[in-house]
This record gives sequence, structure tokens and C-alpha cells, in this order.
Amino acid sequence: MKALVKERPEPGIVYRDVPEPPLKPGQVIVHVRACGISGSEVSRYRWTNAYHAGRAKDMTQLLPRIMGHEFSGTIAALGPGVSGVSEGDPVVVQSVIGCGRCDSCDAGLPNHCGRRVTIGVHADGGFAEYCAVPAANVYPVPPGVSLENVALLQPFAIAAYALEVGSVRPGDRIGVWGVGAIGVSIIQQALIGGATVEFAVGRDPARLGAARSLGVQHIISASTMDAPLRLLELFGKQKLDAIFEVSGHTPAINSALTLLKKRGRVVLIGNLREPFHADLLQAIMDQINILSVRTYSLSAWRRALALIPRVQGQRGAMPVERVPLAQGVRAFERAAAGEGVKFVLEP
Amino acid sequence: MKALVKERPEPGIVYRDVPEPPLKPGQVIVHVRACGISGSEVSRYRWTNAYHAGRAKDMTQLLPRIMGHEFSGTIAALGPGVSGVSEGDPVVVQSVIGCGRCDSCDAGLPNHCGRRVTIGVHADGGFAEYCAVPAANVYPVPPGVSLENVALLQPFAIAAYALEVGSVRPGDRIGVWGVGAIGVSIIQQALIGGATVEFAVGRDPARLGAARSLGVQHIISASTMDAPLRLLELFGKQKLDAIFEVSGHTPAINSALTLLKKRGRVVLIGNLREPFHADLLQAIMDQINILSVRTYSLSAWRRALALIPRVQGQRGAMPVERVPLAQGVRAFERAAAGEGVKFVLEP
Repeated sequence: MKALVKERPEPGIVYRDVPEPPLKPGQVIVHVRACGISGSEVSRYRWTNAYHAGRAKDMTQLLPRIMGHEFSGTIAALGPGVSGVSEGDPVVVQSVIGCGRCDSCDAGLPNHCGRRVTIGVHADGGFAEYCAVPAANVYPVPPGVSLENVALLQPFAIAAYALEVGSVRPGDRIGVWGVGAIGVSIIQQALIGGATVEFAVGRDPARLGAARSLGVQHIISASTMDAPLRLLELFGKQKLDAIFEVSGHTPAINSALTLLKKRGRVVLIGNLREPFHADLLQAIMDQINILSVRTYSLSAWRRALALIPRVQGQRGAMPVERVPLAQGVRAFERAAAGEGVKFVLEP
Repeated sequence: MKALVKERPEPGIVYRDVPEPPLKPGQVIVHVRACGISGSEVSRYRWTNAYHAGRAKDMTQLLPRIMGHEFSGTIAALGPGVSGVSEGDPVVVQSVIGCGRCDSCDAGLPNHCGRRVTIGVHADGGFAEYCAVPAANVYPVPPGVSLENVALLQPFAIAAYALEVGSVRPGDRIGVWGVGAIGVSIIQQALIGGATVEFAVGRDPARLGAARSLGVQHIISASTMDAPLRLLELFGKQKLDAIFEVSGHTPAINSALTLLKKRGRVVLIGNLREPFHADLLQAIMDQINILSVRTYSLSAWRRALALIPRVQGQRGAMPVERVPLAQGVRAFERAAAGEGVKFVLEP
């Protein structure tokens, strides 16, 4: 079969023939129809010094590897002992496999399991025609939802989890710093949940345009203005309930600490590129909480799956470009150059 | 009557005659029997440059003032319209008075009310024979609890609130950095709640001795050793569920971020003396939350009142020294010199 393979610990990725995956007990073979390119995969494609410095999970020991952890498809074959799914079923793959016997797994948080395996990282993933995954990791696609849309469930589930961690409730006023797939998903779900999205900060005009179309009140281009200053002008101090940092840009936290009202929450999701430096005394006085999110809980994943029909085909959703897997190398090149769309590869 | 008065914006405090407070509608007069000296009052006694630099609430505009916000006594008189309490009742005073018509007050958090009045700060307090307070702010003392003990309900309530914010549950392993009245109260209530207090960090031998007597596993003297290094030796990385910072010592946070397990909580209560500086990426990966506490909720106050009989006369409680109000100036002097006991003035 054809696959896009990260072969060596250096920049680049290769499109080539590989053997089809064997069928093992408890697994199913997914005929992949759509697989999103994520930010972590772009980092691995680029393989820069920053990547090696450990700001993203180093993959050197795991190469060669078929990446791809945001994918959907149809069941092509069932391994021995598998029940509850049938050949031809449309499914989306939850890519984190916990050990099943630690307190993180008990809590429905395989993302925190110390012995977890991630499909597309520790095992071959979805940038291929076929992929073998545990039967427990495939979820039925809701009726009417396209395989292309559901392939983006991973960032959508991270957003669901972030909104839960940030305790966002109807009537809350929130802000989002960073308008990639996760940031846009946060905006979509916050609005579904009755919150007002007061601002979105970003750099890419296409993505900012998406945020505007969704109904964000104030669109702040970090490329053309001093975002913290502009936010302070717009809102004044202590006005917002929760702010989501998905840009990896540390000054977003400092800005949030000023904008948040008493008992406000700043939720950290992005991989911060610099150390954080702040006088926290006022934050303590205002009882502001600095909360963290890593990927998602299984319950957030399931909630996101139930919610995704609500945003399918939504005007202003994250701009998506569908690309045949055979042109995947070029898509990675464009993503690495910072093009403001989400690429979905189609084997 | 006699009172201890903070007269001028300079170091010191004065013991002298003042008029008795008038009896107003909705208020009661409390015959004060015990009033603790708090850390913020020691700062105001010392009136150093650091105090003026705004690290504690500046009181210049409010002088002269009878301080004292941790106090108990008996009802001496009822103002017009007051019901539900009787002359002679033993009571403890909750010293924060909210406006009653904002979202913080609605939430039972007058501590966050922007128009709150604090007895002993904005109104005359408990370092006097008599004090006028709203009838809604006096709480009946549980049977068998001494007025001296219940006078320390304020730090005990802050501890109750901090444990709630930190989501401490039976079986959790926690640490406490700072062993003043709040730190010791956290230890007492964490143990009542079925948690294990793995360590306490402090400087004063008497207070560290109190923590040891209560049953803390490891006592760390910050005066004689490198506390973060010692804690890492004792526990290794990612071992504890929650750590409480009540010392105002910023490195405690950095130490906590290393010691906490995934989904661990560091709870900030102390007034931090320096800015915080850290690489938060690992904390995000481990989903560690940095939570803040300011004083207490009314429900935490009420819970603390219900719990205080459980710690009365407990071996290892915070060392307390009872001093007649007439010797209050000397008690302030000793507290400012860093003596490791909690002073309770008795008019």
C-alpha cells in the first residue's frame, strides 16, 4: 500500500510503498479516508533544532514511522476476538492507547498514562491506505457527519476538554489566544454552550477571518498590533471569565492575568515557547487560577463526537484543504511554510 | 474603654482610652475576650518601606484605627432591630462585610466584593474592650469551645477554603510550605480529612515542632537546609497530589511544580514577595493547576466553625500565647521580632 513515511531524524517526509499492516487479535484494520496534519507533525517534518531541544516529543527512536493521529475511515477487516463493529462501518480513531491499569487510565485519562502508546507516534498511523488499531479505539461516526469532518475530532475534543477544565458556563465572557484548529474549536463549542467569545488573537488572516465569521466580537491581529495593549483598551481590567492560551505565546498569560475578573481562569493548552515571568500577587488577591490541559479525557472525546454534527458545514469553521495522500509531501511543505489552512490528507 | 490604636502612618501602636462604640440599628456590641494578632497587622505595626510599596493593603487613609479582625467575645448589647442573638451569648466575629448585591456576595464570597468593609481595617476592630459589628457577622461559638480558641477561626477558615480549592480528598498526599497559623490549620484539617501530610517547610523551630507533633511525616527547616533539594531527595519527581504555599516564598512554587504528580495542584495563599519565573511547559504536559486563595468563602467559614471542636486542645496545635490587652504593645513588638508563637490579646 502507499504511505507517507517519516524515515530519518532529519527534515522531510517520503511517499512510498509499504507492506499492509498485519491483522492481530483485538484489532481492526481501518481503511483510512481522511487524516489531518497536526502541528506536532509539522514540527517533526521540519525537524529543526528547536524540535531537538525537546519542545515537542522527540521521535528519533521510533523511526521509520507512518505518522497521522487525526483520522477516520471505514472498517476493512476485523481481527480475532473483535465484536461490536462490522466491516464497512464508518469510524473515527481515538489515537491514545492507555495501559488500562493505572490511576490515569482509571480516571479516563489515557493521555496521562505513563505507558501510553499513541497511534501515529509509537505505532503506525493514518497517513496510509490502511492502519491497524485496537477495536476499543474506533468510535462510530454520527449519522450525517462526513469522514473528512470527523477526522478533525482530535482538536475538537481537546477544545471540549479545555472548556470543561476552564469551567465555562452559559453567560460567561471568554477570550481565545491562537486561532488554529484547537482555538477555532474552542470558539465553536463556547458559543454552542452559551458563552460570548469576546476576542480572538491570531496572526493568519484566513484563520482570523474564520473566527470573525463564527461570531467572535473582536478580532486582534498579533501581526499588526500590540495585542495585550489593544485588549486592555477594549476591555479594561478584570472583565473576562476565562481566557484560553493555545498559541504557545507566553505573553498571552500575562495579558490574561490582567483581563480576567476575580475568580477568572486562564487555561494553558499551547506548548509555550518561552519561560513565564510574572508577579502573581494580584492574581492571588483576585483568586485567578492558572489551569493546564493536555489533549483530552475519554469523556471529552465522546462529548466532542456528540457535538460535531452541530458544527458540520458551519460558515467560518477552520479553513480546511483536502489533498490526496500522493500529494502529502507538498502539503507538509506548505503547512511548514505557515499556510493558514488545516490540511486533510486523503489516501 | 481601653484600646490598642494604630494612630499614625509610621511604625508603632498605642494603648489608650477611647470612647465606647455607639449602638446602631442592625448591630451588636461584642464584649471582646480574645483577639489574635495577624501577619497583616504586624506589617502595619512595622510600617516599613515594603509595606508602603503596596505588598499589604495600605491603611494610611483609615487612621486612627483600632485594628483586630480575629476575635471572639460575648454579646454585650443588641442594637434596634436585631434578633436571633441574646445578651451574654458567646460569639466569634466574621470580619468581612460584603455589599450584599454583587456577584461575589451572591456567591458567598464577600472577600471578593469590591465594596467590602473589613472590621479592624475599615471599621474599628477587636483590640478593644468593646466592638460594634453587624449582627449578621456574629456566629455562635460551638459548645465546649473556648473563646480563646475560636478567636483563631479566621486562619482556620482560610485553611478550610484552601483545602476545598485544592480538591484534597482522603488518601491524597500533600505538602505545606509555611507553618504559621494558616499552615498549621491546613495540616490539622488535611489530617481530619484523611489525607497524609508528607512534609512541612518552615523556619521557626517552635512552629516546626508543632507540625511534627501533629503528625507531619517530614519536617524541613528552611533555615538549615536547601528545602527544594531536600524535598526532591525525599520524594523524587511527580509524587504528591497537592502542595500549599503559605510562606510568601516564590521558590516554593517552582519546587511544587516538580514534586506534584500529573493533575496535581499548587495552591497559593501567601503574599508572594518576589515575581515568579518558570518554564511552564512540563506543568502543562502534566496538567498541573496553579490555584489561588484569598481569605475564605462564607461556607468555608461555617465549615471551619463546625470543625474547630475537633482540634481544640490538640497536642501540636499552633503555639499560642495569651497576653492582656494592656500589654499589647509589647506583644506587637515581639511578633514583629519574629517570635514563633501566635499572640492572642485579652481585653
